Amino acid sequence: MTTTQIAARQPYLPTAPYRGTRDFLPDEMSVREQVFGTLHRCLEQFGYQRYDGPLLEAAEVYEAKSGQEIAGQELYSLVDRGGRRLAIRPEMTPSAARMIAGHASELQFPVRWYCNVNCHRYERPQRGRTREHWQVNVDIFGSDSPHCEVEIFEVVHAMLASLGASRDDYRVRVNDRTLLDSLLADVIGVHADKVRPVFSILDRWAKYPRADLLAAAVEIGLSDRQFGRLEDALAAGDGVLSMLPAEVVERSAVASLLAGPDRDLVTFNPVIVRGLAYYTSTVFEVYDTDPANPRALFGGGRYDDLTSLFSAQRIPGIGFAMGDVTLMDFLGTHALLPSPEASSQVVVLPLDAGLQASARAIAGRLRAAGYRTTVPLEPRKLGSELKRAAQSGAAVAVIIGSQERERAELTVRDLRRNAQFTVAEDDAGAAVARILSA
Amino acid sequence: MTTTQIAARQPYLPTAPYRGTRDFLPDEMSVREQVFGTLHRCLEQFGYQRYDGPLLEAAEVYEAKSGQEIAGQELYSLVDRGGRRLAIRPEMTPSAARMIAGHASELQFPVRWYCNVNCHRYERPQRGRTREHWQVNVDIFGSDSPHCEVEIFEVVHAMLASLGASRDDYRVRVNDRTLLDSLLADVIGVHADKVRPVFSILDRWAKYPRADLLAAAVEIGLSDRQFGRLEDALAAGDGVLSMLPAEVVERSAVASLLAGPDRDLVTFNPVIVRGLAYYTSTVFEVYDTDPANPRALFGGGRYDDLTSLFSAQRIPGIGFAMGDVTLMDFLGTHALLPSPEASSQVVVLPLDAGLQASARAIAGRLRAAGYRTTVPLEPRKLGSELKRAAQSGAAVAVIIGSQERERAELTVRDLRRNAQFTVAEDDAGAAVARILSA
Repeated sequence: MTTTQIAARQPYLPTAPYRGTRDFLPDEMSVREQVFGTLHRCLEQFGYQRYDGPLLEAAEVYEAKSGQEIAGQELYSLVDRGGRRLAIRPEMTPSAARMIAGHASELQFPVRWYCNVNCHRYERPQRGRTREHWQVNVDIFGSDSPHCEVEIFEVVHAMLASLGASRDDYRVRVNDRTLLDSLLADVIGVHADKVRPVFSILDRWAKYPRADLLAAAVEIGLSDRQFGRLEDALAAGDGVLSMLPAEVVERSAVASLLAGPDRDLVTFNPVIVRGLAYYTSTVFEVYDTDPANPRALFGGGRYDDLTSLFSAQRIPGIGFAMGDVTLMDFLGTHALLPSPEASSQVVVLPLDAGLQASARAIAGRLRAAGYRTTVPLEPRKLGSELKRAAQSGAAVAVIIGSQERERAELTVRDLRRNAQFTVAEDDAGAAVARILSA
Repeated sequence: MTTTQIAARQPYLPTAPYRGTRDFLPDEMSVREQVFGTLHRCLEQFGYQRYDGPLLEAAEVYEAKSGQEIAGQELYSLVDRGGRRLAIRPEMTPSAARMIAGHASELQFPVRWYCNVNCHRYERPQRGRTREHWQVNVDIFGSDSPHCEVEIFEVVHAMLASLGASRDDYRVRVNDRTLLDSLLADVIGVHADKVRPVFSILDRWAKYPRADLLAAAVEIGLSDRQFGRLEDALAAGDGVLSMLPAEVVERSAVASLLAGPDRDLVTFNPVIVRGLAYYTSTVFEVYDTDPANPRALFGGGRYDDLTSLFSAQRIPGIGFAMGDVTLMDFLGTHALLPSPEASSQVVVLPLDAGLQASARAIAGRLRAAGYRTTVPLEPRKLGSELKRAAQSGAAVAVIIGSQERERAELTVRDLRRNAQFTVAEDDAGAAVARILSA
């Protein structure tokens, strides 16, 4: 297809991004950068190290382990010219597991890793759901200790606090698939090979009418009576814990979480399973307490055999992924979104074209002193430049005229207070500092 | 395909990333983050605002405007389930142009934008060439002024200086396609419709034997004599400028660049065309002066009608893209690569399991004071923990024993000097500060 043909068929290409993806113009990007920058600093304070990996992975990686939904219809896949079947990553955990397995001999386990990556799923776009989203993944690899769960929850609280969330703004629901296994096998009497199919019913528990859930349970092979007992148990909330064998509960990290310093924020909820197939014990989700935003914000859990796709060495993992779409909804709901940053703090305005080089030199000195500084690219009247500078959010204008230049002086204008004064060229930095801190 | 079938055919999936892509484990990521973080801060000092856009774009965007190589064999393309033909972006400029065109009425032109994105090209991997790379794009949209060229060059110098490069480490070659047009049409007598085909010969000028270049020129329709005159002109370097009509040279931004404050770093080179089809006048490339790294580091230019794909409004642009692969080669060649950052500065070590919560509380206070601090997740002997801490690059261990705990005291150990002392719990932050700054 040539340019000419396109022009004939469709004079202009659409300026909207591909459906379900987003453009981040500077204002939106500034908000995203501030929010994620805050989260990254928080994670680094906890000793988490950032990593990154390729966007494209062998399609088998997802077909083998991710939940069925992702592996099937939701995957963006392609075949390269060498015949390799590839997929655009729908999530990061399999890539992390691949790297961990491949470098296990060089790493000092346990390791704390985080990343911030874009993931793609072919979904119908709706509130909280896009085809491309950015997510922070936080994981510990190489430890079975319940201290991992305690730390991961501490990190969750610290991350949300770093964004300004109060302890009233969210809650954490926790469950443990090994407890559910025991509930189903030991208490309800569900046969072992029917336990996992029941999980998929639990995953739909809150969203579907009772009749549908019952029908699904009967189809799996549960009796009406077993379904009734399951209903009663799930309604008991943390009452479930007292129904289970003590040694099963003791082995679970849930006990540590319910006794931890943030126990007021954590509830045991036996219905939480998290759809993804690879979780093996602890699962949790963080949800907004504001009824205006009735969604799980993010969640995670333990996946103790994910590296088994790549090596014989068993390397347990636990972590969570926090996506930008739901996170921004949460911050918006609670009025916690930061304001976009202005492009520059200072503009240096030469009064005639011959002073451009001087303006650039002065701007360079202000940048070296730490101020975001611009010089106009096009000739405009001073009044027009001052107006544009104020509109763009700049706080200071430094004006250079030929007469002042001869005396090595500058005019410094406070754009927010509409006051201006003359200073010696060497004092420009100090004058800017005074205005910015006033 | 099910998990079982994969397991039977291939017990483990490969741990290597897809050919031509890279894993960034924490050490490599730390280097990348430090290098790009420095560049981002430098750009923000100049008032450039970060933006981002979708990975997937309509395939037509690249087919219509990019150089033929990219649009053809090098594009990773796919068709979504809705039948839309998509491509993984091979470069960012078309996306930026789409956004600029779509938001032209809201933007205060000229705008200074930058991004840091991964781009994909299906190439044979080799030194300096990968299938996925990360690039910083720096652009000014909405101004024809030669001040843009001056600023873009100033930014190039500032970015390289921010990474520690000296003025001896690189040079900039600049050309202007409008000067080439004039050279070919007015001096060599090449017919207007043969000027662009000659550019593709110039693009291969340094890499191919004379006989091949001559053959290509003859095929286009140049005479042997015209080819000889072209050869002579190109060999003249900036002597070309004196062959051209004065008004053509005056309209070019090249004159400003060759007279600017960094003129010692800039040479006019009439052979530079930059392969990409969309450049319209100024083109430049930055190259390493070290013969060990004989490649163009990066380059860019002016593309005054790129938004014409998306709208009737003409919005000129100028900019460049700096890729991580060639940049890291450059920094490595000149011993300018930063060292990876350690995951934590401080480890807090409880001497028995009952002190875990105290250790976490003290770690929390040290984090609040600004120190990257970890608490071990698994029980180990003190000696083993101290060794692991030192290996991981931590500088301080804070040790909590039950007896000290009762006296509200801690042992603080300087891991680099193997010295330790006891402090009151409230003085832990000050003790850590002393050790880190010693």
